[in-house]
Amino acid sequence: MFNKILIANRGEIAVRVIRACREMGIQTVAVYSDIDKNALHVQLADEAVCIGPAKASGSYLNMENIISATVLTGAEAIHPGFGFLSENSKFAQMCKECNITFIGPDFETIEKMGNKSKAREIMMESKVPVIPGTEGSVDTVQEALQEADEIGYPVMVKASAGGGGRGIRIVRAKDELKTAFETAKAEAKGAFGDDTMYIEKFIEKPRHIEFQILGDNYGNIIHLNERDCSIQRRNQKVLEEAPCPIMNEELRIKMGETAVKAAKAVNYKGAGTIEFLVDNKFNFYFMEMNTRIQVEHPITEMITGVDLVKEQIKIAADEKLELSQEDIKIEGHSIECRVNAENPAKGFMPSPGKITMVHLPGGNGIRIDSAIYQEYKLPPTYDSMVAKLIVHGKNRAEAVEKMKRALEEFVIEGIDTNIDFQLKVLQNGTFQEGSYDTAFIQSNENTLF
Amino acid sequence: MFNKILIANRGEIAVRVIRACREMGIQTVAVYSDIDKNALHVQLADEAVCIGPAKASGSYLNMENIISATVLTGAEAIHPGFGFLSENSKFAQMCKECNITFIGPDFETIEKMGNKSKAREIMMESKVPVIPGTEGSVDTVQEALQEADEIGYPVMVKASAGGGGRGIRIVRAKDELKTAFETAKAEAKGAFGDDTMYIEKFIEKPRHIEFQILGDNYGNIIHLNERDCSIQRRNQKVLEEAPCPIMNEELRIKMGETAVKAAKAVNYKGAGTIEFLVDNKFNFYFMEMNTRIQVEHPITEMITGVDLVKEQIKIAADEKLELSQEDIKIEGHSIECRVNAENPAKGFMPSPGKITMVHLPGGNGIRIDSAIYQEYKLPPTYDSMVAKLIVHGKNRAEAVEKMKRALEEFVIEGIDTNIDFQLKVLQNGTFQEGSYDTAFIQSNENTLF
Repeated sequence: MFNKILIANRGEIAVRVIRACREMGIQTVAVYSDIDKNALHVQLADEAVCIGPAKASGSYLNMENIISATVLTGAEAIHPGFGFLSENSKFAQMCKECNITFIGPDFETIEKMGNKSKAREIMMESKVPVIPGTEGSVDTVQEALQEADEIGYPVMVKASAGGGGRGIRIVRAKDELKTAFETAKAEAKGAFGDDTMYIEKFIEKPRHIEFQILGDNYGNIIHLNERDCSIQRRNQKVLEEAPCPIMNEELRIKMGETAVKAAKAVNYKGAGTIEFLVDNKFNFYFMEMNTRIQVEHPITEMITGVDLVKEQIKIAADEKLELSQEDIKIEGHSIECRVNAENPAKGFMPSPGKITMVHLPGGNGIRIDSAIYQEYKLPPTYDSMVAKLIVHGKNRAEAVEKMKRALEEFVIEGIDTNIDFQLKVLQNGTFQEGSYDTAFIQSNENTLF
Repeated sequence: MFNKILIANRGEIAVRVIRACREMGIQTVAVYSDIDKNALHVQLADEAVCIGPAKASGSYLNMENIISATVLTGAEAIHPGFGFLSENSKFAQMCKECNITFIGPDFETIEKMGNKSKAREIMMESKVPVIPGTEGSVDTVQEALQEADEIGYPVMVKASAGGGGRGIRIVRAKDELKTAFETAKAEAKGAFGDDTMYIEKFIEKPRHIEFQILGDNYGNIIHLNERDCSIQRRNQKVLEEAPCPIMNEELRIKMGETAVKAAKAVNYKGAGTIEFLVDNKFNFYFMEMNTRIQVEHPITEMITGVDLVKEQIKIAADEKLELSQEDIKIEGHSIECRVNAENPAKGFMPSPGKITMVHLPGGNGIRIDSAIYQEYKLPPTYDSMVAKLIVHGKNRAEAVEKMKRALEEFVIEGIDTNIDFQLKVLQNGTFQEGSYDTAFIQSNENTLF
């Protein structure tokens, strides 16, 4: 096992990793930018090294400085957390070349999975379902009709250069295709000067369901069941729960096996996540693989009893996975709310500043992963998440009630937060039924704000 | 189910009960004394009624005022917490006469178990092992020798009126008895004016091991395994853990069955605890039954997944126990540290006052049951416990490491606390081995302070 680990991150995930190390008897090195000198992760680590200015490019993304800090302090491994350098294959490679263990998969795996079209190709070769679509470009209406027939309606006609909703049309039936294709193509030409088009299956109101993976250096790969992350705002997850409320055992087995197959396709090592889109007929499609620990990992820990960060460290230290697929059980239900410093009424505008008062909820089944404290000055420089409030109940109904009462107890003063917004999500009938999809927040704008 | 419950208590246990009610959709009424008007339980409850002055006899022990507050607010039931009126049979009877549900066993059960000699008698009738001893008084050396022979050495010669260590002698062999009996008798005469003597088996360095019981109104009684509460200071529990580190499955079954037998002997309803003394040969003896929820109940919740306060409420609402003995499993290991406002270096002198800073530990496997908040003025009037820090790990070693790191993160400023003292207990080799007994703190005075 390692004697010392450097954590190349900040905020709650840095604190999360430091806690795991402390419990494992491993020394910790925090790195920090100028503006973070009073941050909690700096206070909790055994050592701390300043690696640059507030701007992440000079500090938390500064590979040379981080490698230097590692060498300087004699740390044997780097935990990258999430965000920043966690999915940077060049950084992982640099660690390897410097004889520092990067706590994550091989840099080649990061590289492959980071390239969307490469990842799609690998998945198709491994018979992992991907969103059906054309391989190359579609140039004529004739071609488009033929491809759409093969894919099956509804489809999306998309400009390769598209963005911001332009050059995109949803086509629900054959007779709509010609007009849609031509107008989208013209729109793309006008907007982007490039009218290269392709066609993809349109997944109507999908759910975002992801599977947690653990793989060791000896070819053992297991999954730890799913998380439902469909409650999103502009593709940003807001609230996650495990297990997925609409999951059934048959689908779980099928998706779980597919997730393991996807991870095996790249000989995956460490903790990772296979993200799927699931349509209303329970067809699922590979979306992407995240080759790192995720924000929402605690809900999997709550229902499985497995400490994912400790597993990451043990795997990186070349230990064999002690868990087999049969050991992984689901116990109860867990929900995570991301508490952000932002004002939902003002378009979720970030709200940095001094936290003048903190009162955390507590009691049975409440977990808080956070890096804030009273009088902490939240910098405007980094992301706005200030705490993860995680609950565990014996079933979903209890978890929902627990989260409601915990949100009601939670007090943060001095900055705006989305606590009331989260409470409204919890109080929403569709959410309570569990019948939501990724359009939930958009569809409920009138009542959530 | 009840619509509204009044909580006849204060501090963390009042908060604990309010949280359970909130999660069950039950309205709550807090009661408070003058000095507690800003207390957390008052702020968290739906309603709050002042019931008298700071002194508990006028408020938290004022039965008439509490009953009035219940009637006034239309609450249908009273949860007494622990301490105060929780084991007062007269209060339970008064509730019954006023058609208010007392959340606890029948008043007759409270009365029986509250009377030590009555309880002992009931247990003996039910073949529950009690500490062997003489039934009536022992008047002569001759009688004493005969009784001691029957009980078996070592024995304790005790004055009925004894206290503060006076009128008590430990006798390890027959030839010591005469002198011991005569000097103790004389000492008792001088000190208390009463030289009535009795003899009891002396349990050398026992462990305090207790079993959690749940019984419903339909005769179903189960146990939820044991807690080890041997880490005590002057008979006050300091740190508890579950399961007991020296327990084996055979003994657990035997003690568990005995605990259920003890509870059945009084047709027990609700949550209760059978306390045993266990000697170094694993002989166990009934000590007493606590007919209420206990401070250390969370560690049982952590290893069994059963919410004991919710079970209490469901039982009081006449619901059948959904759990059978086979449903009760032990998952991992849990430890609770009682965080008290006191100064261990100054003889554990209480340290009330304004809490100027609070920073709570968090993360995976950490639970905090507390009623403090920053700027809270801790009154000198009530007991000094300000928080219960509870951890859950996959095994004892992980739980110990988790507790250590959590204690290291815990910051309370403005008052003295026993946090560092608890940390020293955790760091002690005997504690880490799990081979401690009730004399642990006394035996380790040199290193713990």
